[in-house]
Amino acid sequence: MARKNGKTSGAVEKKLVGVADVVITAAQRRKDPTLAIPVRSLSNITFNEHKGLIEMGKAMQARSFFNVGMAKKFMQTVLVADALCELQRADLTTSLREIYYRSKHTIKNSQENTFDTQDESDPLIEDLEVSLAALREELHVRAENGGSVVGPLVLVDDGDRVDCAKLGKGGYSVPSIVEPEYLQIRSCTADFVLLVEKGTQWNRLSEDKFWRTHNCILLTGNGQPPRGVRRLARRLHDEKRLPIYVLVDNDPWGYYIFSVIKQGSINLAFESQRMAIPKAKFIGLSSGDPETYGLPRNVGIKLNDKDITRARELLNYQWFQKKAWQKEIKRMLSSGLKYELDALASKDFQYLTKKYLPRKLKEKDWLE
Amino acid sequence: MARKNGKTSGAVEKKLVGVADVVITAAQRRKDPTLAIPVRSLSNITFNEHKGLIEMGKAMQARSFFNVGMAKKFMQTVLVADALCELQRADLTTSLREIYYRSKHTIKNSQENTFDTQDESDPLIEDLEVSLAALREELHVRAENGGSVVGPLVLVDDGDRVDCAKLGKGGYSVPSIVEPEYLQIRSCTADFVLLVEKGTQWNRLSEDKFWRTHNCILLTGNGQPPRGVRRLARRLHDEKRLPIYVLVDNDPWGYYIFSVIKQGSINLAFESQRMAIPKAKFIGLSSGDPETYGLPRNVGIKLNDKDITRARELLNYQWFQKKAWQKEIKRMLSSGLKYELDALASKDFQYLTKKYLPRKLKEKDWLE
Repeated sequence: MARKNGKTSGAVEKKLVGVADVVITAAQRRKDPTLAIPVRSLSNITFNEHKGLIEMGKAMQARSFFNVGMAKKFMQTVLVADALCELQRADLTTSLREIYYRSKHTIKNSQENTFDTQDESDPLIEDLEVSLAALREELHVRAENGGSVVGPLVLVDDGDRVDCAKLGKGGYSVPSIVEPEYLQIRSCTADFVLLVEKGTQWNRLSEDKFWRTHNCILLTGNGQPPRGVRRLARRLHDEKRLPIYVLVDNDPWGYYIFSVIKQGSINLAFESQRMAIPKAKFIGLSSGDPETYGLPRNVGIKLNDKDITRARELLNYQWFQKKAWQKEIKRMLSSGLKYELDALASKDFQYLTKKYLPRKLKEKDWLE
Repeated sequence: MARKNGKTSGAVEKKLVGVADVVITAAQRRKDPTLAIPVRSLSNITFNEHKGLIEMGKAMQARSFFNVGMAKKFMQTVLVADALCELQRADLTTSLREIYYRSKHTIKNSQENTFDTQDESDPLIEDLEVSLAALREELHVRAENGGSVVGPLVLVDDGDRVDCAKLGKGGYSVPSIVEPEYLQIRSCTADFVLLVEKGTQWNRLSEDKFWRTHNCILLTGNGQPPRGVRRLARRLHDEKRLPIYVLVDNDPWGYYIFSVIKQGSINLAFESQRMAIPKAKFIGLSSGDPETYGLPRNVGIKLNDKDITRARELLNYQWFQKKAWQKEIKRMLSSGLKYELDALASKDFQYLTKKYLPRKLKEKDWLE
């Protein structure tokens, strides 16, 4: 209801209306209405070493109405744009699934549906994101709330002042959309952000008030961080100049999660420029930690074939070519073991907060 | 750190110490140390029609030390009790996984581990819950934060006053443990609780400030509600005398979620008496709603074989024997269709908040 912003919404609405304009203009000129959609395949993706980002290239494909193979998809694209436009005008947000339902009709005097499954509408929303250079969030498409945050951070959500230092251990539930039109960062006195993969460790840190003893923001997405959590970290990095430290399990999946936070993902290359944090630092678990911190071998988990294959793939990625990273991944492979953050509990339930992280931070023991 | 409570913790600690006492007392008397563990199988579970709860019976099994088949399990039970005791003494909470790691050692002068996988420690924690009549949360075992809440509700978490009417659209992230020793309900002026299955609809309601127009608490667990969300609903019901309305998809899974909220689950029958809400009401989606609210058939999803089998199973459950429920489930089966809450968006993005729920509430159109 509130969350008026004028500027952003207006701009996005204009872009969406532009999609309809293509059809009208072409019709007036008696031409074939055509939309230019950037190609979202591996062939059109590169790693920009200078920026440290996975980026999309400039290849485009035409989608035109008077083409038997494309006509339905063209019509569907316009329908989805129309639903998205409705969201902008009413100043509402919704989910991918509801957009599918909203755009689904049985075409008059036929048995034909505009859409049969959500698989047909989701890619069109991505097409529009890329074509219109608007983040999904700017198109007002959200997922579920997906994480928690505590620490010396004051946000404004829907006009409410939310002090994340006064929300107990539970914290603020991070919304799916944290764009400035919805969520403002009023103030933040932290020195850094600790982005924790798993909720368990976040709970340990929150319970022990680690954010207070180390003046930081504790953020988690309960697993692979959802877009809202990534965008919030990115905004804290950009707007408050905070370093971002990422704490994940020591396994190929942990490395991958870190890499997505740092340089973006191949699937959503278009969004890297506003989601990725090229300066993010990997603070652990490192494959060197079990030795350094004396973790017993019996809490390591044997790498399975999938882990080994995945780790070898990571070794070949351009963004893991730095010497330190090659060493990190190879050490895991040669040990034959992976370690979960939870394994630190084998020493002591509070080992993470009292020993491991304080030493890591003091020794600046991280990878970039 | 804070969250001192003395009473509860002390009592639970004593119970845990009691487990060790069994061993000591037996040793002193030169007897076989034996623990009595309630049987957690279907044979020991009944539905108490009067209370409207799934309950555990009184059958017990002995676990003794001087029995080749039981010795390891006995030792493991004592180790887990010891780790849980450590939590009580240090006033900490932790996860099932960390308890596994904490209790895992290689036994001196052997290659034998106390535990090889978490599958061995989890059931022992359940054994202890049941034996000691302590909820998992009272044993300080938590899962991840698992849901969101907004509305006219003031909580106290770790000494912080958390006003859920002033947390924007995002709301308060519901902790895994909401027991009174950790979370206090300071005040609540709502008329009822709306427990919403999916985050999408919760977001719609939160964005539209439905809690303000209808003076209610909006609660979700993003799917099958986790224990923290169920306990919070139960506490609001008990302590603030609030009716609980449950909003789920119209499919067998939705019915099942409702039934777990209402009378508990077979797997965790022991906990029903403190988790279940026998007076919870099913407010929708009902299989009658598509007709009543004019939902087009094309947004219904064809029931698959699994749905049909599951629905037929539900028809046989004791707690679905009421006439209205038989009619409800049979109507779904005969229509051959299931409907998601998201399908309401086919009418209008705000149909849920502006039309559907207001009418449901006004007409008291729910099932018990």
